[in-house]
Amino acid sequence: MTSKYRAAVAGATGYAGGELLRLLLSHPNIEIGAVTAAKSAGTLIGEHHPHLVPLADRLVEPTDVEHLAGHDIVFLALPHGASAEIAAQLGPDVLVVDCAADHRLVDPAQWRQYYHSEHAGTWPYGLPELPGQREILAGTKRVAVPGCNPTASTLALLPAVAAGLISADDIVVVLATAPSGAGKKLAVTYLASEIMGSASPYQVGGIHRHTPEMEQNLVACGATDPHVSFTPVLVPMTRGILATCTAKLSDPSITADEVYAAYQKAYASEPFVHLLPQGVWPQTQATLGANTCHLQATVDPNTGRLVAISALDNLAKGTAGAAIQCTNLALGLDETTGLSTIGVAP
Amino acid sequence: MTSKYRAAVAGATGYAGGELLRLLLSHPNIEIGAVTAAKSAGTLIGEHHPHLVPLADRLVEPTDVEHLAGHDIVFLALPHGASAEIAAQLGPDVLVVDCAADHRLVDPAQWRQYYHSEHAGTWPYGLPELPGQREILAGTKRVAVPGCNPTASTLALLPAVAAGLISADDIVVVLATAPSGAGKKLAVTYLASEIMGSASPYQVGGIHRHTPEMEQNLVACGATDPHVSFTPVLVPMTRGILATCTAKLSDPSITADEVYAAYQKAYASEPFVHLLPQGVWPQTQATLGANTCHLQATVDPNTGRLVAISALDNLAKGTAGAAIQCTNLALGLDETTGLSTIGVAP
Amino acid sequence: MTSKYRAAVAGATGYAGGELLRLLLSHPNIEIGAVTAAKSAGTLIGEHHPHLVPLADRLVEPTDVEHLAGHDIVFLALPHGASAEIAAQLGPDVLVVDCAADHRLVDPAQWRQYYHSEHAGTWPYGLPELPGQREILAGTKRVAVPGCNPTASTLALLPAVAAGLISADDIVVVLATAPSGAGKKLAVTYLASEIMGSASPYQVGGIHRHTPEMEQNLVACGATDPHVSFTPVLVPMTRGILATCTAKLSDPSITADEVYAAYQKAYASEPFVHLLPQGVWPQTQATLGANTCHLQATVDPNTGRLVAISALDNLAKGTAGAAIQCTNLALGLDETTGLSTIGVAP
Amino acid sequence: MTSKYRAAVAGATGYAGGELLRLLLSHPNIEIGAVTAAKSAGTLIGEHHPHLVPLADRLVEPTDVEHLAGHDIVFLALPHGASAEIAAQLGPDVLVVDCAADHRLVDPAQWRQYYHSEHAGTWPYGLPELPGQREILAGTKRVAVPGCNPTASTLALLPAVAAGLISADDIVVVLATAPSGAGKKLAVTYLASEIMGSASPYQVGGIHRHTPEMEQNLVACGATDPHVSFTPVLVPMTRGILATCTAKLSDPSITADEVYAAYQKAYASEPFVHLLPQGVWPQTQATLGANTCHLQATVDPNTGRLVAISALDNLAKGTAGAAIQCTNLALGLDETTGLSTIGVAP
Repeated sequence: MTSKYRAAVAGATGYAGGELLRLLLSHPNIEIGAVTAAKSAGTLIGEHHPHLVPLADRLVEPTDVEHLAGHDIVFLALPHGASAEIAAQLGPDVLVVDCAADHRLVDPAQWRQYYHSEHAGTWPYGLPELPGQREILAGTKRVAVPGCNPTASTLALLPAVAAGLISADDIVVVLATAPSGAGKKLAVTYLASEIMGSASPYQVGGIHRHTPEMEQNLVACGATDPHVSFTPVLVPMTRGILATCTAKLSDPSITADEVYAAYQKAYASEPFVHLLPQGVWPQTQATLGANTCHLQATVDPNTGRLVAISALDNLAKGTAGAAIQCTNLALGLDETTGLSTIGVAP
Repeated sequence: MTSKYRAAVAGATGYAGGELLRLLLSHPNIEIGAVTAAKSAGTLIGEHHPHLVPLADRLVEPTDVEHLAGHDIVFLALPHGASAEIAAQLGPDVLVVDCAADHRLVDPAQWRQYYHSEHAGTWPYGLPELPGQREILAGTKRVAVPGCNPTASTLALLPAVAAGLISADDIVVVLATAPSGAGKKLAVTYLASEIMGSASPYQVGGIHRHTPEMEQNLVACGATDPHVSFTPVLVPMTRGILATCTAKLSDPSITADEVYAAYQKAYASEPFVHLLPQGVWPQTQATLGANTCHLQATVDPNTGRLVAISALDNLAKGTAGAAIQCTNLALGLDETTGLSTIGVAP
Repeated sequence: MTSKYRAAVAGATGYAGGELLRLLLSHPNIEIGAVTAAKSAGTLIGEHHPHLVPLADRLVEPTDVEHLAGHDIVFLALPHGASAEIAAQLGPDVLVVDCAADHRLVDPAQWRQYYHSEHAGTWPYGLPELPGQREILAGTKRVAVPGCNPTASTLALLPAVAAGLISADDIVVVLATAPSGAGKKLAVTYLASEIMGSASPYQVGGIHRHTPEMEQNLVACGATDPHVSFTPVLVPMTRGILATCTAKLSDPSITADEVYAAYQKAYASEPFVHLLPQGVWPQTQATLGANTCHLQATVDPNTGRLVAISALDNLAKGTAGAAIQCTNLALGLDETTGLSTIGVAP
Repeated sequence: MTSKYRAAVAGATGYAGGELLRLLLSHPNIEIGAVTAAKSAGTLIGEHHPHLVPLADRLVEPTDVEHLAGHDIVFLALPHGASAEIAAQLGPDVLVVDCAADHRLVDPAQWRQYYHSEHAGTWPYGLPELPGQREILAGTKRVAVPGCNPTASTLALLPAVAAGLISADDIVVVLATAPSGAGKKLAVTYLASEIMGSASPYQVGGIHRHTPEMEQNLVACGATDPHVSFTPVLVPMTRGILATCTAKLSDPSITADEVYAAYQKAYASEPFVHLLPQGVWPQTQATLGANTCHLQATVDPNTGRLVAISALDNLAKGTAGAAIQCTNLALGLDETTGLSTIGVAP
């Protein structure tokens, strides 16, 4: 007897959709129902994701309510702007897990400022590691999966903010990231010949849309009026985010040992945050394919700054893994069901 | 009649040595004399640098005074600690251009703190773009070529410091860099399988030896008691540095246009600093093989920080190109002789 | 009640050892016992394999009989030359699975010719897809895991040889491969700066040690006196083999459809060989981390040659995955236990 | 007084166009006139080629006869199908150098078979290393620049064919190549996330359009009715081709030394073909940015095959470098003017 939940994946032909399918294939309590896309409807999954051998012959259906209806769970891996309408039509009893930005921000003014459109409302935010967030996600029917960059920077800074070790008004986040975060967008910028052999920043000067989301998360960690200077840098790797986060210590006498102890305490029981042994720094390769964030933090006495660095797989813990982690919480399953902490390296 | 200067290259089999040879092959006023190495003496250049076709059959001789003597110029591309002794034996009339760190720092205490050995004295510092530095380098017989990371961060910050746009006491530099900066060092860290697909920080927390050199340069730009939080991140590319530098604006009302104007003014006549059109950010690929630093700067109004980003080729403008640029100045040649601003891309 | 088999992994700090551990962590019937190494004894697994979070604190013990004894299974991921002696000391009742070359070849003369040492004897060869090989592996206590290159080329050619579609006396195999196949060997050749941005052949002209193993396998497929011209080419990727195999058709009138039909028939029930839809060619990325070989074949009418191309992960189906596949057969478990056909991409 | 030739570059915003501009910037006898493109007319070169600093502010004009007229030389870096019409309008006195395929093939039937359109006629073929080809190119007003893959394979096989060492009826060419060969074509296949970490073949089974061009070149080397089985494999590097070519020896007793001697003799005075020391194999990295083809050849006694491997930069000697080499010949300049044999590595 099978009592599996049935999940549809909208936007199944993109990278986030493919990662959702990859992880769902290993999930013991969820079976894959409809897989849908816009332009690619009528093709087979094998044409888009040759790595998903068990789904090679699955037909891609159109992304519409007709094909998404009748599932227990609907994962949305669509461009932002599409989820509110779909969710409304699916009804309140379907678990809708949205990987796009539409329902992450609490403040409609911030949404308008950064996304230049009307705000579609706020859904429970899918970062279970935030204080009190698991209670909010338990049993929810709507999840706004965090952006990959905010997840990386929030997990790097949370213990320091929560323990009052830093002042949050002058945080600097510089983040190396992989082009798969942009999906299969066809632009010269993302061609292999442009990316290989190059490091290139983008959305510099406080204009990246993940900035208000980072700040909102820091408030959830206990910060008052946080300000983040965020610079993302594209580097030549298929997956991965390495977030270097620095912030002024609230007291220059705080030591590296105190910092480390705070991180140990904060993450002692987190299944998907891996604090490395003191002195060992994370690398993205170790997180490939895993729902894990690797972390380290210390003090730079020369500048009186905390330096905290996190590594994660932008498609896994950064997107699809987080989506499934939250799905587990929403369904009342063990949070770790179907998720691995083991990366594929080298 | 040939009136070329004759140059020896010590450490010719490493990456910095190879880049010196590559550039010297195109220099109209310098001919390559002895090429030397320690362990590889007796081999041919072609075994180490198959890209240097015209030197394929050149014999690598031992690195000792006997083989380095009798040249007008001696380039040292050796591990730090070796140059002082060699320079003393070559005599005061030979132009010695040292790519290692030995003679960069002015303060012996800083040397001891970061390098754990006795200071060998200070030589004229080979960053001609620093205020007044060309005069110091003109006619000199000793040049301390800057570290690649200090060159990138100094050029990114110089105009802002010189124009008083930022306070220098809380500068954050996060820098993506290529493994060729470590030379041909045999360590698991530098194996292709470890580097490809990964971003990994190292020497985190203010302990990297380039930190005091960066701060010393900022003093030369006009800063008082600068403090830099410096974090280097290895990324998978053969060459290149992308330095993301942020600092508090000295006055929060300073605008992006004012910043850009200051950079334009500062670098208007610099042959090897290329300020990009406003809004365009540098990428390392565009500098590959060229003696050029590409730059952009703006204001992040959300944090009241300047964000300045530079890109350069760590082996070219970061090391060997700078060495030749300074050699030109030392010899009284046109500073740009034999050097190109044109990168090889994609 | 746990009735798991207990496995030791010798050579656990290398890439093949790491992949064995990664796969064993997901195996429901095997638990990891001793993990051993030579020089790294006394360190922790987390220092070598930060991706294996659940094993981060496991102590690496010395590779000797004392530490390997007392297990049901011993995986050897050691340089060739070490396994025979260890196996003898472990006794006949322990399942010994050797990832090195020592016991692959049947012909001692070939061993001596290619490996320049005495032959240690032949063990059951761990390529279950060979005709009759599953019967040989069932219940065995010794397994010689195939070389990654012979696995790729044999699977690409097997159906054509078995069906008599090609003459085996003039086979050409040119194979793109990843540097992880060389393990953590410290040599300039394997430095990131040498590998990135380059394609470089090695062991050219019929001298690669995998050549006789390929030919031996083709005999097992039904060929008489096969001859393979084998050229491996290192390319910049962490994992993966793409084997382009061509051979003269035994009859120039053989069509692409006939070839495809033969491949379909040969691999219809193979769990770990994935014949792609006709006209679609394999790519290594799709096999990353999976125990799968992707395949396609066609006819080049211009030359009367079959062209068959296979892709696999050199560390997974090419080494550690094959080791576990054979272990399953040797233990009487379902052959697919603990192994996945799903790659991690992009 | 300047007596430079003036050159226009059509298709200047693509990769081949960019490489033409890069090389022309160093050419002492040619100055850059109009730079044109189709969709990008009205933009600046700096937007497309940030590495070409001296041309950053050059306006891109439309690709039409009005803008191309009035130059001594017109380089065409356009998709095939465009050059004949333009050339006709430019008149017979303008040197037109076409980097596309339109005028390479001699046999109209082959053109129709592979390109599915009408043949536009044959121009002098721009591979000066072919026997007698320099005479044909001297003073010509039309040049058909070879395809990058035919250049690599022809140079690898020429001495063996010319000396009668191989039979040309069963040649196998497997070639690792960089995605820049496809230009800035926007397709998922060429996205960084697809290319990095992967080796993927394309146009398999004798259908690649460079196949008849390879065979035509072998005829020019002296072969009768050559047949080439050609398989290109995309690998993750920005530039480079590594062509592994094998062919049956005409006599199995031919030795590796005889082969090497034939290659030495054939290329003794070729400025842009670099035969490596016996036993050393080429790698693409060593040719980056240079107009050089690196070569090695040997015998595989096990199969009675010659194995010859060439490496070159697909954009340099593979396209733009060859274009300028032929331009030099057509103009009566020294063939090596403005071209370098020195690569940029690592």
